[in-house]
Amino acid sequence: MALLVVGSIAFDQIKTPREELKDVLGGSAVHCALAASHIAPVQLVGVVGKDFPHEHLRMLANRGVDTAGVDVAEGKTFRWAGEYFGTMNRRETLWVELNVLENFQPKIPPSFRESQFVFLANGAPLTQLSVLDQVKKPRFVMADTMDLWIRTAHQDVLRLLKRIDGLILNDEEAILLTDEPTILGAGEAILRMGPQRVVIKKGEHGAILFTPGSVVPLPAFPVRELRDPTGAGDSFAGGLMGYLAKAGNTEPPTFKAALAYATVVASFCVEDFGTNRLQKAARGEIDERFQRYCSLLRVD
Amino acid sequence: MALLVVGSIAFDQIKTPREELKDVLGGSAVHCALAASHIAPVQLVGVVGKDFPHEHLRMLANRGVDTAGVDVAEGKTFRWAGEYFGTMNRRETLWVELNVLENFQPKIPPSFRESQFVFLANGAPLTQLSVLDQVKKPRFVMADTMDLWIRTAHQDVLRLLKRIDGLILNDEEAILLTDEPTILGAGEAILRMGPQRVVIKKGEHGAILFTPGSVVPLPAFPVRELRDPTGAGDSFAGGLMGYLAKAGNTEPPTFKAALAYATVVASFCVEDFGTNRLQKAARGEIDERFQRYCSLLRVD
Repeated sequence: MALLVVGSIAFDQIKTPREELKDVLGGSAVHCALAASHIAPVQLVGVVGKDFPHEHLRMLANRGVDTAGVDVAEGKTFRWAGEYFGTMNRRETLWVELNVLENFQPKIPPSFRESQFVFLANGAPLTQLSVLDQVKKPRFVMADTMDLWIRTAHQDVLRLLKRIDGLILNDEEAILLTDEPTILGAGEAILRMGPQRVVIKKGEHGAILFTPGSVVPLPAFPVRELRDPTGAGDSFAGGLMGYLAKAGNTEPPTFKAALAYATVVASFCVEDFGTNRLQKAARGEIDERFQRYCSLLRVD
Repeated sequence: MALLVVGSIAFDQIKTPREELKDVLGGSAVHCALAASHIAPVQLVGVVGKDFPHEHLRMLANRGVDTAGVDVAEGKTFRWAGEYFGTMNRRETLWVELNVLENFQPKIPPSFRESQFVFLANGAPLTQLSVLDQVKKPRFVMADTMDLWIRTAHQDVLRLLKRIDGLILNDEEAILLTDEPTILGAGEAILRMGPQRVVIKKGEHGAILFTPGSVVPLPAFPVRELRDPTGAGDSFAGGLMGYLAKAGNTEPPTFKAALAYATVVASFCVEDFGTNRLQKAARGEIDERFQRYCSLLRVD
């Protein structure tokens, strides 16, 4: 089944301890869509400015991403600049130019409204909710959120939680959202707020899946060639949702496999700048690493 | 096969955000021996003072720990006091009274010298080396170390590394020892320093096993009832070495299973103060949780 992805499309300026690149294709929806495209057809909804090169849209289309929902608006594409420090587990946003993203009101094309699997990438919860008013009867909706919305739009986040099936966020955000001191407590508290699938990301330390009655920790895949962590979380979400859309179910065993697949897809993302690695990755490479990861975790 | 454990025997004073206990039985060798005793016979070498209650030795003997190597010296037993903060992933040592440990020169009883599996708990590397001079032809020697020795006795640590088969240490210590910026780099650098099995512990985030040609990350078992982390690392090492001694081999697949068993044993340790939980744990409980953990990690 197809996966509907709604979120940002961006040009990133990325500085790591060794390199600096400008005008890198990025944005939550792009990373997510590209990651998912290796396993499922994707429908992308977002906004770009007149400055956005057509070749990027063509690249996405070539990867099986339907870009009918990408609005080309007057003005410039959203831009984000960030810098990584140390072993790149610390990041600072240097500046943001919202540009066309400032007035982004996602319009879901009629051909996307029957989507069964929906991913609401990080965005204002009211904007995320407006997407849910436009899709007909999705089977599984997952959302990402961030500290900004948890702090400034807490009630809207709580409303969103009542209408989605899954939430994905990082450890600090989970603790902020729930006021629980531990990740375990936070994950279980979020289950009580609505979504019955909660994924807490711990960066280089992996992720934990919470479902009613089970807590599943998975380690990150050991990455030798860490070059740029930008988009790792969104690629993780894309791998997860793509796997679920392809499987057509979200039961705990499938969800765990999806999480393992997501871990592997994210490990590709960070091996090069922006979307470079996941643009080039062959399905066979991803499958091979997925099998290797599953076998690493198998205790006989 | 029996496991020889050499290390400290202590009374701990432990303060957590909610509780404070004094005169708690502890020490690296005690935690390690007790953890291993659930799966293999253990030979314990250490020193206590005249104040050490006989009942503790009896408890260990009842659990299958041969205490013939515990020297009762003039003076008082080693004492350590520590405090945990926040969610107990930060610890400070409040004070230490070395007492009889100050002049501890481990004497391995003749009946222990044929031991095939040896664990050198954290201690001065020269003391650890002196143990190796007393055992005949061990098949597998594993050692623990800490930042103090890496800083103050670096050359001795390097000498020790040439004579052991495995090293277990935490992430910060591994980075300090190797001057590598990442855990992955540190683990592989230690493999080049001698030991062919390296385990880097990451506390609540699990551990990573390095062998020539493989890197295996394992997550921690999610613990709901975290009460006192003291001894978690030593219990982890004890579970690991006990499993290997019982299996009688240290090949990578067995080592991974041993690491999974170690993870589970450590998860029991932290559920109560000191050695309380592992004193009481039934073999069946540990086995059941081990099966559950392995099945959590199995992706179908």
